[in-house]
Order: sequence, then structure tokens, then C-alpha cells
Amino acid sequence: METLSLEQYGVVYNMFSFTIASMLGAFAFFILARERVAPKYRISLIVSAIVVGIAGYHYFRIMGSWEHATEYVNGAYSFNVDLFNDAYRYVDWLLTVPLLLAELILVMGLSRQKSEGLLTKLIIAATAMIVLGYPGEGAAEASSIILWGVLSSIPFAYILYILWGEVGQVIDEQGGRVGLLLKNARWLLLATWGFYPITYALPLLGADVGLIGMQIGYAIADVLAKAGFGVLIYIIARNKSDNDGYSLEIA
Amino acid sequence: METLSLEQYGVVYNMFSFTIASMLGAFAFFILARERVAPKYRISLIVSAIVVGIAGYHYFRIMGSWEHATEYVNGAYSFNVDLFNDAYRYVDWLLTVPLLLAELILVMGLSRQKSEGLLTKLIIAATAMIVLGYPGEGAAEASSIILWGVLSSIPFAYILYILWGEVGQVIDEQGGRVGLLLKNARWLLLATWGFYPITYALPLLGADVGLIGMQIGYAIADVLAKAGFGVLIYIIARNKSDNDGYSLEIA
Repeated sequence: METLSLEQYGVVYNMFSFTIASMLGAFAFFILARERVAPKYRISLIVSAIVVGIAGYHYFRIMGSWEHATEYVNGAYSFNVDLFNDAYRYVDWLLTVPLLLAELILVMGLSRQKSEGLLTKLIIAATAMIVLGYPGEGAAEASSIILWGVLSSIPFAYILYILWGEVGQVIDEQGGRVGLLLKNARWLLLATWGFYPITYALPLLGADVGLIGMQIGYAIADVLAKAGFGVLIYIIARNKSDNDGYSLEIA
Repeated sequence: METLSLEQYGVVYNMFSFTIASMLGAFAFFILARERVAPKYRISLIVSAIVVGIAGYHYFRIMGSWEHATEYVNGAYSFNVDLFNDAYRYVDWLLTVPLLLAELILVMGLSRQKSEGLLTKLIIAATAMIVLGYPGEGAAEASSIILWGVLSSIPFAYILYILWGEVGQVIDEQGGRVGLLLKNARWLLLATWGFYPITYALPLLGADVGLIGMQIGYAIADVLAKAGFGVLIYIIARNKSDNDGYSLEIA
């Protein structure tokens, strides 16, 4: 039974609430902003909406679990780790990580054949990456952490190989401002996803990431990787719609 | 009174949550993706949305019942089977199974007469199948399990007879990629529905399926049979819209 100060309890609680507000706001935005991009690109905004919707649902659950696991006693909070369900995050990633990759591919407006080929590879690899990471999360022995970490890194490496290889070629063909934005989106994915394996591996280095730091870090990474990434996808879709001659001006 | 470890409790809890997230995500998708298929096929996406909406509601109920039936005591969970309401599943099937068959028929875009004829037969048979299975579920005597199992199998056999006979002819006429996808949808129905009678019959063979295995199995089957099936129906509707000349490109 750990004891949390009022400030420690509050900062995690408020980060969860910040994340819920961001996800719900983003959900409304992606649905409403669909009409501002050409029909062809709306599917990427629909997928963005579903990603932040699912993430918002999970943060409601995580916040409920946080309240359930903590109890106010004489000016501080006792925390029962048994009652705090962190596995929601894995359930969330299982659904949202393949969908984030789908957003990136769908906004490119490729031929159906090219699109389906890339989506199939990336979705299978993303699912394998999440499933293989789960047994190592919170494992007691270093050997388990390393084993599952390495296994999970194989599909991750494959995803990077596809994103910088086959997808990279497509991005180069798109060129101009759209090409630049697509490269930014790819970097945002790598930077925000990079947070997760680092947090996963820190216990190996003897570092006590700490409950508080981990919850804050995951929340920030989730807002950037889902709501932030979705906004970037929207900007790409707007630019491509402009290029295709889809005008918002009155004729 | 059974005792569940934290892991056993958690894996069921997280599977329920995964199912809710999948159903809610699919609900948003089917509603938003309607505009991407020709008006004629939108009814099949509307029905898909209703199916996953109803399933999501029932999983909220099942999850609540799971929380109600379990109690955290000193690092483990006690489970009171009397308080766990599994009958939600039958209520769910009573509504969703006829609607799943309706999705398959409606996406074909048949003449109203042909469509109504098939729907009437399939919906009546599906309702009879679910109603007749209920008294045998969890029955104590083998004779009851067998009696209701056999009675319930009669409309199931009739559904297969229609799907591979009359519906099979229509699928053959559609041909090409759409025909292939329709055959896949039919197989997905059979494969996921096949899970239910197997779970039903296992107690007869003396097999203890076990609470945990059954809940996980049902959840996976439900996600595939409802959200997964709906996505397949959407892909069929998109293909048929393309074939009919309904374009998402700017003219």
C-alpha cells in the first residue's frame, strides 16, 4: 500500500481529465471538419475520430480505476496497486495503433491495391507488436522483460522499414508541402511511440520511473500521438483537397 | 463461491472492456462511413451500426454484472455465480442475430420482392434458433441439453440451407470480387456462429470449459461476428458502389 500526497494524487487525476477533454474535443473536431476536405480523404478523418473516441473511452476507465484504487485518509491518499488497472492501455493500443497507421496511409489517397497492400502489412505488424509487448510489461524478472521486449521490437522494426522504405517512396512522389507534412506525421509517430518502449525498458536500468511519472508521460504521449497526430492528418487532407481543386470558396 | 486470481479477474475484465471499445468504435465508423457508399447500400451500414450499438450496450451490462458478482478480498477476487447474469448474451443474440443476416441480404441490393422473401425466412429461423437454445443453456440434465440443442439446430440447419442454396445462387450471379467477398462474409458467419453451439455442447462431453475461457471466447467471437462482419459488409458496399459508378473523386 503506497501513500500519495494530495499533490501527487491531484496531478495524475488532472492529467487524466486533461486527456479526456482533449480526446473528446478532438472527436468532435474530426467529425465536424470532415466536410472541409474532399470526399476521398474523409475516411482518414473518420479513422482519426474513432481513434480519439476509443482513447477517450479508455481514459474514462483509467480515471475510474484510479479513483477505485485510491482512498483519502487524513490529508493523503492510500493507493492499492492491485485495484489499479493499467492494462486498459494495452487494450487501447491494440485497437488504436493499427488505426493510426491506417490514418497515415488513407490520407495519401493511393490506388486501392497499393493502399490495401500497405494497410495489411502495417496492421498485422502493429497488432503483433502490441500483443508481444504485453507479457513483458510489469514482469518481475529482467529475462522476461528482455525476451518480450526483443520479440515486440521485431514487428516495430518492420513497421519502420515499411514507413521509411515503401511509404517513403510514396511520400517522395507526393512532394511539396504535402510531402513535408507527411514526413512530419511519420516523425511524430516515431517520437511519440518511442516513449512507450523507453518507459517499458527503464525498470531494466534500475530506474524507478514511478507511478506518477509514468501516468503523466503516457497521458502526454497519448494526446500527442492521437489528437495531435489526427490534427496533422487533417492539415494534410486540407492541403491535398486544395491541390485537387476542392474549393471552400463560393463559386 | 469461487476464488479468482487478480490475473483471472483482470483478463475477463479487460476482454469486456476491449469488446465495449470495439463495439463503440465500430458504431461510430458505420454511422460516419455511410456517406462513402451509394444510397442503396446505406441500409446495410445502418443495420451494422445498430447491431454493434446493441452489443456494446449488452457488454456494459455484462461488465457491470461481473463487477457486481466479484469482490476484492486480500489480493484475490471471490466470485458469486448467482450474481453473474450471463443471460444478457441470449437477449443480445435474439436482437442481433436476425439483424446480422439482414446485413448480408441488404448489401446485395436485390429487388424488394426477392429481398423481403429471403429476410422473412432468415429472420424467423434465426429467432426460433435463439429461443430454442435458451432452455438448454446451463441445464443440469444431459437430456435437456440434448433436447433443446437438437430443436435449436433445426432452424440453424434451415439457415445454412438458405445461405448455401437460394442465397448462394444470388452470390454466384454477383460474381467477381463482390461475389468472393460475399462468400467470405458467409464463412465468417458460419465460423463465428460455430463457436456458440460448441461452447453449448462441451458440458455434455464432460469438459469444464471454465468461466474464464468461456467469457474470453464469447467476447472474441462477438467482436469478429459483429464488428468484423460489419467491416466486411462495408467493404462489399464500397465495392458495389464503385461498380455502380458512385464516385468519391471530385468530378
